Amino acid sequence: MGKITFGVANSLENRLARADDTADWLLWSDEVKAAIEDFWKKVDAVLMGRKTWEAISKMDAPLQSGVKTYLFSRSLKKSPDESVELVSTDAARFVRTLKSQDGKDICCMGGGDFARSLFEADLIDELSLNIHPLLLGSGPPLFPELSRQIDLKLVECRTLEHGCVSVTYRIKN
Amino acid sequence: MGKITFGVANSLENRLARADDTADWLLWSDEVKAAIEDFWKKVDAVLMGRKTWEAISKMDAPLQSGVKTYLFSRSLKKSPDESVELVSTDAARFVRTLKSQDGKDICCMGGGDFARSLFEADLIDELSLNIHPLLLGSGPPLFPELSRQIDLKLVECRTLEHGCVSVTYRIKN
Repeated sequence: MGKITFGVANSLENRLARADDTADWLLWSDEVKAAIEDFWKKVDAVLMGRKTWEAISKMDAPLQSGVKTYLFSRSLKKSPDESVELVSTDAARFVRTLKSQDGKDICCMGGGDFARSLFEADLIDELSLNIHPLLLGSGPPLFPELSRQIDLKLVECRTLEHGCVSVTYRIKN
Repeated sequence: MGKITFGVANSLENRLARADDTADWLLWSDEVKAAIEDFWKKVDAVLMGRKTWEAISKMDAPLQSGVKTYLFSRSLKKSPDESVELVSTDAARFVRTLKSQDGKDICCMGGGDFARSLFEADLIDELSLNIHPLLLGSGPPLFPELSRQIDLKLVECRTLEHGCVSVTYRIKN
C-alpha cells in the first residue's frame, strides 16, 4: 500500500475529544470539507482503536464508501458493524502486513495505546493535524507516552477558516 | 501593566521538556533570536513556577536585564537567586494585583499547576507557542487539566526555520 498517515483534528492542547468522548467542538468549513474529500480519494483503508470507533459512532458520520475500516481491539469479541473488520491480533504486525500489500494510502485515526504501538513500530509515515483554536480542559490526549523521541519534518502549515491551523509532518526516524 | 502573555516553546505533543527537565531539543535561528529580542522589549516582568525555574536554571540562560522575575512556589522557603522575587501567596491574587499596576507586558512561562491557576482566574490575555517538529515521548506537559473550556482566537501563524511553527492566540473568555 501507499503511506500511512496519522490524521486527526485536535484541540491546541492535543486532546481528541471532551472527557465524555464528544467532539461537538469540531469546526467545519467548505475548505475543510474539500481537504477531507481530497484526502479520502487517496485512501482505501482506515485504522482505529476502540475508543476512536466509539467516538466516531457517536458523531453519526457515515463510513467512507470504498474505504475499508479496521477496528483494533482486544476486548471486543465481535465487530460492532458488518462493514468493519475487527482485528484482535498484534496491531503492529497486522498493519505491517497490510502495508506490504498493493493499495492506496492508509489513514490511522485516534490516540492512546493504538497510536503508540504504530509509532513505536515505525509504521507511520505522515502526521496530519487540524489544530482547533481552543483548550478543551480535559479529555483523551492525542499523543501517548512514547519510549523514544520521534523527529518530524514539517511539510505543510496553513491557516484555515475559523482559526484552525493545518499542519503536516513527515516522520523522520 | 499591559497584557499577560503565556509564551513557551513546546514539542508537537505539547511537552515543555524531557522527562529529566532538559530542553536540549530547542532549535535556535536568527529569526527566533530576533523574535525573542523583540518580545523582551515589550516585557518587564516574567512569571514562572518552580519547575520551570529549575529547567531554565539548567539551561544557563541569563536573566533578561530590566525584567523582573517572579518565582511562584509554596515549597521554597527562600529565593534561589537574589534577583528573583519568591512569591508563596496565592498566585492568581498576586498576579491580578501586579497586572493592575503601571508597567509593560508580563510574560508567563511554564505549565502545570501554576498555569492552571492563571488560566482559570482569566488572567492570561495571549498564548504564544513555538511548536517544535518532534514528539519528545515523555516529559512535563504544557497544558494542565482545566475545569472549563477556553476559546482562542488565532492572531498569527507562521513557519520558522527548521520546521518550527509559531502560533499566537488571544484568549476569548
